[in-house]
Amino acid sequence: MAAFSGSTLLRPRHVQRRAISQKTDPSNDEPDAGFTLDPPSGTRDFFPEKMRMQRWLFDRFRETAQSYGFQEYDAPVLEHEDLYKRKAGEEITEQMYNFRDKEGAAVTLRPEMTPSLARMVLSLMRAETGAIAAVLPLKWYSIPQCWRFETTQRGRKREHYQWNMDIVGVSEVTAEAELLSAVVSFFENVGITSKDVGLRINSRKVLGAVLNTAGVTSDKFAETCVIIDKLDKIGADAVKQELSKQVGLSTEVADTIVAATGAKTLEEFADIAGVGESAEVQELRRLFALAEDYGFADWLQFDASVVRGLAYYTGVVFEGFDKAGVLRAVCGGGRYDKLLELYGSKKEVPCVGFGFGDCVVMELLKERGVLPELGPNVDMVVAAYNADMMGKAMNVARRLRQTGKSVDVYPEAARKVKKAFRYADKVGASRIAFVAPDEWERGEVRIKDLRCAADTPNDKKQCDIPLDKLGEIDNFFS
Amino acid sequence: MAAFSGSTLLRPRHVQRRAISQKTDPSNDEPDAGFTLDPPSGTRDFFPEKMRMQRWLFDRFRETAQSYGFQEYDAPVLEHEDLYKRKAGEEITEQMYNFRDKEGAAVTLRPEMTPSLARMVLSLMRAETGAIAAVLPLKWYSIPQCWRFETTQRGRKREHYQWNMDIVGVSEVTAEAELLSAVVSFFENVGITSKDVGLRINSRKVLGAVLNTAGVTSDKFAETCVIIDKLDKIGADAVKQELSKQVGLSTEVADTIVAATGAKTLEEFADIAGVGESAEVQELRRLFALAEDYGFADWLQFDASVVRGLAYYTGVVFEGFDKAGVLRAVCGGGRYDKLLELYGSKKEVPCVGFGFGDCVVMELLKERGVLPELGPNVDMVVAAYNADMMGKAMNVARRLRQTGKSVDVYPEAARKVKKAFRYADKVGASRIAFVAPDEWERGEVRIKDLRCAADTPNDKKQCDIPLDKLGEIDNFFS
Repeated sequence: MAAFSGSTLLRPRHVQRRAISQKTDPSNDEPDAGFTLDPPSGTRDFFPEKMRMQRWLFDRFRETAQSYGFQEYDAPVLEHEDLYKRKAGEEITEQMYNFRDKEGAAVTLRPEMTPSLARMVLSLMRAETGAIAAVLPLKWYSIPQCWRFETTQRGRKREHYQWNMDIVGVSEVTAEAELLSAVVSFFENVGITSKDVGLRINSRKVLGAVLNTAGVTSDKFAETCVIIDKLDKIGADAVKQELSKQVGLSTEVADTIVAATGAKTLEEFADIAGVGESAEVQELRRLFALAEDYGFADWLQFDASVVRGLAYYTGVVFEGFDKAGVLRAVCGGGRYDKLLELYGSKKEVPCVGFGFGDCVVMELLKERGVLPELGPNVDMVVAAYNADMMGKAMNVARRLRQTGKSVDVYPEAARKVKKAFRYADKVGASRIAFVAPDEWERGEVRIKDLRCAADTPNDKKQCDIPLDKLGEIDNFFS
Repeated sequence: MAAFSGSTLLRPRHVQRRAISQKTDPSNDEPDAGFTLDPPSGTRDFFPEKMRMQRWLFDRFRETAQSYGFQEYDAPVLEHEDLYKRKAGEEITEQMYNFRDKEGAAVTLRPEMTPSLARMVLSLMRAETGAIAAVLPLKWYSIPQCWRFETTQRGRKREHYQWNMDIVGVSEVTAEAELLSAVVSFFENVGITSKDVGLRINSRKVLGAVLNTAGVTSDKFAETCVIIDKLDKIGADAVKQELSKQVGLSTEVADTIVAATGAKTLEEFADIAGVGESAEVQELRRLFALAEDYGFADWLQFDASVVRGLAYYTGVVFEGFDKAGVLRAVCGGGRYDKLLELYGSKKEVPCVGFGFGDCVVMELLKERGVLPELGPNVDMVVAAYNADMMGKAMNVARRLRQTGKSVDVYPEAARKVKKAFRYADKVGASRIAFVAPDEWERGEVRIKDLRCAADTPNDKKQCDIPLDKLGEIDNFFS
């Protein structure tokens, strides 16, 4: 839902194209027929070190979603382009990574996950009994890779992963409270506090009420919101101009709306917007009250300028922001009660969700110094004394793995013991097993501790362990 | 490495296109301008139930790889098309899901993972010190989604996930032994035995020796192998014809090769091929001996007909097969010592790896009846007695989540208690907490056990637990 809303996404990537010589395919009439060792422009390789951190982050996403009782789902990274055809001038639909497949179908690498979710939910509701009530409410999450294509700035990222959580079938703001609480739980789990990050809350419904009072038809609503979202980027005057030229709002209404977004409190906002203590305003108050009871109100603040750039939001919208002011929106979301109707639902299906990009949160964790130190990948290395012992070494490795340990076999016969030690050190193992003929004949394996202090007595540094006792190896080094 | 080698991939998918009415975009001049609720042709949605099973499978892949000390990596699903330009007539490169991006770059949804791995390894070796030894050997794994596009049969799958494990930098067959052992460990972990699945082993090196003896140049090797791999599909005569027409082999050499693939034992094969007890044959013997020591020799059998369809294999090749004869290759892999040179490496870098598709292994587990029963997603549901208690209910949920439980908040005030019970049952919760004013005033929450036997005494079915004791909730129901 928050497509590429990370500051890191706006920083030029260090583009180092290492061209390598290769025989050019004669059938290839490319202007640039060679290839580089880099992945395609704007995409990322995940080497093991980076991958482990990514896996750690995704595990925290999953842990949080599961502790809230959400179920994981997924959809193809390739979707029908039609799914995203909305005419409100959003950046996200203008920058699709779309193309025609070989059968002429208009497809795209998904720019965001919400339309896939909506498609799946609608398909499920129809497949079940036709009765919506039998399926709803649903609480679903996913961590899809999302794509965009924009040509202007080379080196900008074209993909990111985005944690999505959505609740389908709940019209009350309890759903918003649940999602905001999950965001807060995630932050708390990874060591981010309300001093680091805040959650700005607003509601498009109040804006809708203003437009309604001014006699603006509801089909102008999405476009109006998308324009207002550009305030930061293009300034108040340009926004007012677009509102009058593109949407046809009167100067007076445009002025009121832009003025209202500057309000510092919900009261002030309601006042400027001329909607008073309306149902829309009361709903926002209820959300803040629920957050108070829930115990995370310190993370929230009302902010009339938050509108979000997606056309389909209809109610509460929110975004997470870096209180240090360095990074852009950390996450964002809102209510989209009309989207399923766009896909053919005969009745409104209330939905609310958020998206949470991987790049910006990694950046945040780095800046706050709370990225975890991940332990070594390998517990033990097993080395064979000579080629004849290699199969035996592998057998030892198998026994050790059965105890739940991560065990790597040094792939060469290790007559040069130093090389095996260096290898064990490189992979981070804390013990090494040498499988050699003498011990093997006694039915034993020699194990050395690689992490013990220099003054450890010799009998604690090294141990000959019977093969059938390898399952209790930890006891020999206690 | 085993691209789409699953029988399920060859079965027509039940294609149910549910067209839905939608305002057609006038700017859209498609022949088929509407859209369906289905994902693009040949792709899969993962609804939660299916997703949980997929997650379970992936966790088993990861667990196995990690117990062998392998490190996870990833690369973008979109790659430069150049990476796959090999001219041996492989199905995999002929059926790429490729297209031009908006800047004219020739890109493709990756057909397989190995070229991305090779690209990354080479880039890493250069970035480090230039010295290969500083980085190798590497043991890496990944579970990428791979894609293909073929137009002939509608409804065939166009994507699958594929567990890849690769060892880079080891020229001895200890690497093959390690990988085969990992495959066996995975099977054992999920309840598949050597009665269900076997691993067919062969070596392309022996074939290479035959060609070499016959004076065939080494640049014909890949093409020859790709053609031989079609034996099952097109028959011996057609293969011999292609070998003579496309590769230019003499009838005699073509006959020898095809005859050799029918050999039942390694001895017979060496004999027919006329290579005797050569180094190539001895290497295969060593692999079988290592498997014996390792303890999984019962899974292996020599099979001269296994060549595999990828152009880059240079040595040992293998595939897992269903002993019931129902499913196609369950996994496949082999040694590819020349691939990094194709990408610009100045010296040969020995590599070996396998690919393991998600569809066919799921099919296998289903057929053998060993798919696990996954427990419920949610431990507890919390329901509020009325709207005023909703925030309190959420607070209770938060406390329960801090104990590690998966807790869902019933999103409506539950004056109709039955609805909340039905919901708890639907999500599989074993307990429900009712947050109501009377108990709340006493600082307590009423918890009901939903899974106890009918004759459970009342005081064990239901409990009023003090708020500050919610962390010890399990003790109240022991």
